[in-house]
Amino acid sequence: MTALQLSPQVTEALDAGRPVVALESTIISHGLPRPRNHEAAIEFEEILREQDVTPATIAVLDGVPRIGLDAIGVRRIAEEDLAKASVRDLPILAARGASGATTVAATAHLAAKAGIRVFATGGLGGVHRGASESFDESADLSTLAVTPITVVSAGVKSVLDIAATLERLETYSIPVVGLGTTVFPSFWLRESEHTLDWSVETPDDVAAIMAAHDALGHRQGIVVANPIPAHQQWDPAEHDRVLAQAFAAADDAGVRGKAVTPFLLGYIVEASHGRSLEVNLDLARNNVATAGRIATAWAGRRV
Amino acid sequence: MTALQLSPQVTEALDAGRPVVALESTIISHGLPRPRNHEAAIEFEEILREQDVTPATIAVLDGVPRIGLDAIGVRRIAEEDLAKASVRDLPILAARGASGATTVAATAHLAAKAGIRVFATGGLGGVHRGASESFDESADLSTLAVTPITVVSAGVKSVLDIAATLERLETYSIPVVGLGTTVFPSFWLRESEHTLDWSVETPDDVAAIMAAHDALGHRQGIVVANPIPAHQQWDPAEHDRVLAQAFAAADDAGVRGKAVTPFLLGYIVEASHGRSLEVNLDLARNNVATAGRIATAWAGRRV
Amino acid sequence: MTALQLSPQVTEALDAGRPVVALESTIISHGLPRPRNHEAAIEFEEILREQDVTPATIAVLDGVPRIGLDAIGVRRIAEEDLAKASVRDLPILAARGASGATTVAATAHLAAKAGIRVFATGGLGGVHRGASESFDESADLSTLAVTPITVVSAGVKSVLDIAATLERLETYSIPVVGLGTTVFPSFWLRESEHTLDWSVETPDDVAAIMAAHDALGHRQGIVVANPIPAHQQWDPAEHDRVLAQAFAAADDAGVRGKAVTPFLLGYIVEASHGRSLEVNLDLARNNVATAGRIATAWAGRRV
Ligand SMILES: [Mn+2]
Ligand SMILES: [Mn+2]
Ligand SMILES: [Mn+2]
Repeated sequence: MTALQLSPQVTEALDAGRPVVALESTIISHGLPRPRNHEAAIEFEEILREQDVTPATIAVLDGVPRIGLDAIGVRRIAEEDLAKASVRDLPILAARGASGATTVAATAHLAAKAGIRVFATGGLGGVHRGASESFDESADLSTLAVTPITVVSAGVKSVLDIAATLERLETYSIPVVGLGTTVFPSFWLRESEHTLDWSVETPDDVAAIMAAHDALGHRQGIVVANPIPAHQQWDPAEHDRVLAQAFAAADDAGVRGKAVTPFLLGYIVEASHGRSLEVNLDLARNNVATAGRIATAWAGRRV
Repeated sequence: MTALQLSPQVTEALDAGRPVVALESTIISHGLPRPRNHEAAIEFEEILREQDVTPATIAVLDGVPRIGLDAIGVRRIAEEDLAKASVRDLPILAARGASGATTVAATAHLAAKAGIRVFATGGLGGVHRGASESFDESADLSTLAVTPITVVSAGVKSVLDIAATLERLETYSIPVVGLGTTVFPSFWLRESEHTLDWSVETPDDVAAIMAAHDALGHRQGIVVANPIPAHQQWDPAEHDRVLAQAFAAADDAGVRGKAVTPFLLGYIVEASHGRSLEVNLDLARNNVATAGRIATAWAGRRV
Repeated sequence: MTALQLSPQVTEALDAGRPVVALESTIISHGLPRPRNHEAAIEFEEILREQDVTPATIAVLDGVPRIGLDAIGVRRIAEEDLAKASVRDLPILAARGASGATTVAATAHLAAKAGIRVFATGGLGGVHRGASESFDESADLSTLAVTPITVVSAGVKSVLDIAATLERLETYSIPVVGLGTTVFPSFWLRESEHTLDWSVETPDDVAAIMAAHDALGHRQGIVVANPIPAHQQWDPAEHDRVLAQAFAAADDAGVRGKAVTPFLLGYIVEASHGRSLEVNLDLARNNVATAGRIATAWAGRRV
């Protein structure tokens, strides 16, 4: 796959069978305000390096999908105005020599192509509320249906249709495993109203499932639902209040279709006076640390 | 595929190019009451052996997907309290050494991996009524979109959304062929209100389609719609009456979402005083016998 | 793939790396009245030959998928009463030795199997209005999700749900690129109300995206949205009036489900006094000519 460019650190780690974790770039370019996003990008990588895990932050720079960025690359995804790039945008960016921040779908796709098996993100994309009419369903789900990678997330944001998202994951034959929980988390909160069929206790348990998945020749991704630590979650009452306000505001403003989710997310950041961003950062750190431990457990099995 | 364990009989039959038919285990563990389910499991295998066809009942026992069970295995699926296992549950059961009864999706998936080309079940899973909102669509359909196996069923239970199920089969490019009928059956009844584009008369006709399918390199499954013999079908008037009662009862009880279909099926067994179970057994026997003839025709082509 | 039969001209052109464009046959057998359809089939091929591009009209004749027809074959698709054949019908037609006119899905599928990389059609199939309930979604979209071919179309007919169709294309990770436009066309009109993320100016730009797509190992199709030239489009006011009439007539006549789209299309031909057919022919010619230029650009890159 000469179209991808792996950093020397990532190449070396993969060749040596050492743990590597993929990180996405839209959380940096679109999910967090400057300059905090730059600090976060550096911090996520540091969390992994402290575990002796090699970070592979993924983005498209000047047309080339880069698997592992140097300091200049990390600065670029934090400071440039990048378009979001999903899987289908990659050939177009490549043909133009343009840059883009990779979504969960594109990051998972590129990481798997590079041979990386574990990926940390904040929340998965999903089925949007109203998708019954709009058909707005994130390519994150359909991409994971054909992409063998373990994705560690804090579930799905409660602005989406969580029930429908879990159904799609089932229809796509994508395993969903709670880590230390039997309840699917809802991003800012440790819980949604949806229980899970399967729960595991340790990163080793996840690695064992990955091994069985490989032995069976399965090509789907594995979703690890990793709730934010209890002391860091958003206060559920405040979360519910702000979300109800956000939905009402979208309704009042006559926002429709694809514009709804971005409107809601913007509203929530503002109405929560930054609290939702704090939680977002905390859950992302937690996912990165957990992904590091799963990658380490995975590398340990392969010795 | 060392993750699967084929019985010596199945290995031998496949190696010799002799006919083999896969059988699922959820019909035994969840579809029929004890001890009748054990008798049925044995009978289904006998129907095939009498045709000189090797049965391959499929289940996960102690973490291992087993393709073809011995007498102890058949007893276990009838007597143990097994979870239903779909494709995405297989790596988790494997990692835990746990057991499970395979759904249509998982059975088709494992059978195809083992090299088996014909599979008999009762009814296919499908799109649930209300799936427009709930997104509840069986992984049976999406799995058959990428699994080259011929599935003999009596159609889809009328508690599901048959029209939507047929549309999904079309969207997934899965051929649906009526055997001796131009009407899609509705499990307990020979007919639904939906006509089929294609009808064939004999098992040889099905085998010829399978050969063309292979020659074209297609990887989808083929659905053979095999209506229950006329003298065995449920009385249509009684069927309609019991179904209407069941839907009304679900409504009265406020049952919603994923709970609806199991509620309806339980209600129907009870309200029909066991008649629906009789029909279920008869159509399953008929599907097994038909699958045996198709497997025999298929083996005959390959000599 | 011995199941396909390539014409000597197509084989020769592909072997020599010369440009080839696939053409579908349902537009001939079902989209245009006789004998105009025969003239159109010949004309589409001529447009390509004048560019030194080899036409590969695709159809199933006597069970055999033919990639490139001779004069007798072209006459047959224009004059025989052929069934529409989608991907899932191919093995059945093959087993019976029957003939069929290939849909966008089947043509794309067969062309890609034959090694052809560019395909011209009129309009893509899509998500039908009311698909939220009916689940009626064309296999054209799902087939392009796994078929590496560049399809040149004038978008999607406005009788379909264009917004939902564009969402499905996104979920399937199928790139959609406007050629000389930033607005998705709606078949008879240069524009719909939907803007595109990506627009290119030249056939070379499309070929560059195809090259990047290949380098990334992507297996989806690429949709090139190619609006009809401005002077040839249907008068928007008349289009809107006739469409509104058509929808009202379908409603009055109580037409439901799968019958709606054919009813609307028939109504529109009649109510427009043939104007819609003129536009259909013009946009098809334009797509064929554009596809020829893209195929030429593609062949040029590979020297
Ligand atoms: Mn979307
Ligand atoms: Mn379900
Ligand atoms: Mn349809």
